[in-house]
Amino acid sequence: MPPPKLGKNQVFFGTFIHSKGLDELEYLHNAAVCVDTSGKIVAVETNCNQQKAVETLYGRLGWSLDDVSVVRARDGGQFFFPGFVDTHVHASQYPNVGIFGKSTLLDWLNTYTFPMEASLSSLPKARRVYTRCIRQTLAHGTTTAAYYATIDVDATNLLADLCYSMGQRAFIGRVCMDHLGPEYYIDESPDQALAATRATIEHVRSLDSDYELVSPILTPRFAPACSAEAMKGLSELQKQTHLPMQTHISENRDEVKLVKELFPNSKSYADVYDTHGLLTEKMILAHAIHLTEEEADLIAERNTKVAHCPVSNSALSSGVARVRWLLEKGIQVGLGTDMSGGYSPSILEAARQAKLASNHLAMPEGQLDGLPQDERDKAKLSIDEVLYLATRGGAQVVGLADKIGAFEVGMQWDAQLIDLGIVPAEVTEDDFTTHGNVDIFGWEKWDERIAKWVFSGDSRNTKRVWVQGRLVHQQT
Amino acid sequence: MPPPKLGKNQVFFGTFIHSKGLDELEYLHNAAVCVDTSGKIVAVETNCNQQKAVETLYGRLGWSLDDVSVVRARDGGQFFFPGFVDTHVHASQYPNVGIFGKSTLLDWLNTYTFPMEASLSSLPKARRVYTRCIRQTLAHGTTTAAYYATIDVDATNLLADLCYSMGQRAFIGRVCMDHLGPEYYIDESPDQALAATRATIEHVRSLDSDYELVSPILTPRFAPACSAEAMKGLSELQKQTHLPMQTHISENRDEVKLVKELFPNSKSYADVYDTHGLLTEKMILAHAIHLTEEEADLIAERNTKVAHCPVSNSALSSGVARVRWLLEKGIQVGLGTDMSGGYSPSILEAARQAKLASNHLAMPEGQLDGLPQDERDKAKLSIDEVLYLATRGGAQVVGLADKIGAFEVGMQWDAQLIDLGIVPAEVTEDDFTTHGNVDIFGWEKWDERIAKWVFSGDSRNTKRVWVQGRLVHQQT
Repeated sequence: MPPPKLGKNQVFFGTFIHSKGLDELEYLHNAAVCVDTSGKIVAVETNCNQQKAVETLYGRLGWSLDDVSVVRARDGGQFFFPGFVDTHVHASQYPNVGIFGKSTLLDWLNTYTFPMEASLSSLPKARRVYTRCIRQTLAHGTTTAAYYATIDVDATNLLADLCYSMGQRAFIGRVCMDHLGPEYYIDESPDQALAATRATIEHVRSLDSDYELVSPILTPRFAPACSAEAMKGLSELQKQTHLPMQTHISENRDEVKLVKELFPNSKSYADVYDTHGLLTEKMILAHAIHLTEEEADLIAERNTKVAHCPVSNSALSSGVARVRWLLEKGIQVGLGTDMSGGYSPSILEAARQAKLASNHLAMPEGQLDGLPQDERDKAKLSIDEVLYLATRGGAQVVGLADKIGAFEVGMQWDAQLIDLGIVPAEVTEDDFTTHGNVDIFGWEKWDERIAKWVFSGDSRNTKRVWVQGRLVHQQT
Repeated sequence: MPPPKLGKNQVFFGTFIHSKGLDELEYLHNAAVCVDTSGKIVAVETNCNQQKAVETLYGRLGWSLDDVSVVRARDGGQFFFPGFVDTHVHASQYPNVGIFGKSTLLDWLNTYTFPMEASLSSLPKARRVYTRCIRQTLAHGTTTAAYYATIDVDATNLLADLCYSMGQRAFIGRVCMDHLGPEYYIDESPDQALAATRATIEHVRSLDSDYELVSPILTPRFAPACSAEAMKGLSELQKQTHLPMQTHISENRDEVKLVKELFPNSKSYADVYDTHGLLTEKMILAHAIHLTEEEADLIAERNTKVAHCPVSNSALSSGVARVRWLLEKGIQVGLGTDMSGGYSPSILEAARQAKLASNHLAMPEGQLDGLPQDERDKAKLSIDEVLYLATRGGAQVVGLADKIGAFEVGMQWDAQLIDLGIVPAEVTEDDFTTHGNVDIFGWEKWDERIAKWVFSGDSRNTKRVWVQGRLVHQQT
């Protein structure tokens, strides 16, 4: 089922909050954002109420009153925020969120991950899992996701179908792994891996020929799971198709050691990807924790992107990625939930844990202990910064910086309406109502409201979600 | 308003999960727990349905059918769990949750904390804040809380009144601070501090003469904020009243340094409390991060308790408390939300972050880097362990180990009914329903369901909450 066309132009009134730059949120109050029937933002006006919009904006846009539907954010507790970008998420692992046992990366893959992924060759099971994963990520305000599916072509195509019909902007990766995988879950050969990948590309093209909403993404799982032939083949395919790519790098110390053993002639993990033609500006590298200075410099030089996945990194005891260090090298960084290495479908949770993980770097006895306090404190990410990573940073990482991530003319209306609970002026002891974890008493400044949302918000605060102007989720 | 008396005996049917010991949850399926009109558990029977209960249990207990009301946990997704114990929480800071700016402990106190606490001398404001704090903690399954109020007697008494009428088991601490505080928020003298504390004790005694539900707790804020006279006076008062006590220790390196400067003749921070008669088995020490080996040994020797507050410690970049190390010394440890150093009213969130913080200890480049992997891995807390800390550990810390924290005959029915969302067998693309973040597909084992709850659960999963047999919260 293709997404329905929007019948009407839309205008949104109220407070709009988005990132101006890495360390600065912009607050637009009493503003209006006009969105045309293609889902594109065609006007952003401050100090604009409905009367003024009708008198000045509509004429300029050639709109008549009948053409326009209106959505208003309630003063005080509600605001519009750009949709979140999840730059690294395994849709196929969704049912395993929260299940880790005592494992770290390599045994976790064998115990939990590969059996679950393999089982999704059953299409009814894949439909149930993928539908739920898309619904939950939409409910948490994720308007764009870079997905890993499985090695199975039909199930991967189904994920594309579901994203398309449910209206989530998505990159769909059939996982290439022709090396070291378990017998029951592995591509048979480099040729077969490439043929299967081409089959999913064809399917997505038949669905959405210009990749406006859903796009394929080339997905070598990670160096240990790919033969040199498969990696070179994917690099060739990328040159032909110009498609984006995604993989993992340097998540876990044992993994780094394994790569060293498997590729004894490479200078580093990053060098493995570089020498196989995969380290380009179209590549998203997840994790990037245990990089050397030289690797980070190489990644910066190639303009390769990084998906920071703090929830996963803390849950699997992988380590803490040095985001400030990456950013200062000029590397573009976004956030990933990395389900089910991460336990949460929420990029807001990823933003929160990005803040906390960066605090851990700066702590006494932490990774930077010994450096002066000033130096350590610099590693800490601010609220504004983690929200930038969640939106504009993510948009850069998936190659859509000019299209999504902020409220600017020419961008798409990929947005969420956030509602923070207001504590009544008169509370009573027998009122059992809560409206989630965020309680606004009324005296908080706007930056404090945002801080409360980042630390305590969840999908209860996400009232409605739009992608390309289309309403794709609302609270029931 | 006193809590209503329970009219009827109650029997609860279904799955009951609680801690047998530190590292072992016990799962009781098809079980029945009988609770008398005083709120006490009088029978725990496995393999017991309603018919069997009527035939065997009721007779043994002298109950007739008419006397009993029945509550059933639905098979599959629901279970009963002991209520959580929050061993360290500042009710008066509740409106500040999530608001930190760039601060760490000492500037955070001056910028955010003291102004908020001082403002609660306005009783209408205190009523609004305290009522909301109690409602939210109850909604998150906290049946017992060790509260810090403020220095104000009337507002502190109001907190006691509200806990009593809303039915939360609580320790109410008027904060003693006669040193180094801001001019607008400080006890005038040691004598005044003690007189004010005695006034709140009298008030709580008039409310609940045997301290069955609500008890005073002696609360020297922390060593830097207390004169030697005030600490000695509180120690004397404790010897007369046998009341519990609470304070902070070794949360932040600058704080430790300050204590060294203020008490140059003391051997350590712990020694300050010891030499002022406060380091006893009745004392709860919050944080305990930067302790020396000698301090931890002294705390163990005195049988003094520790409130571990990982959410706060990560948010304020304070450091990571070494819980395994404390436990292995024989120190009893519980969890605290430490609002608003912590950003969440949820002890489930504290349990989750206790798990993650312990992972951080074990990480490469983490605090224990250099030790062999085995040694590092030992620092990690398991799901079962953090749930123990949240219930039985907390019960030990607040001195109620024989009364709450598990489902055992003779204990109080302080419990929560947890409901994990079940993903329908048939999902549809246009179904916008979510029931929170926990999605159970049906194939998960019980320990995996619990892991999903710990990592992704929130107050949406807490359907009903009881204290002493009384229903004190249910979802609206």
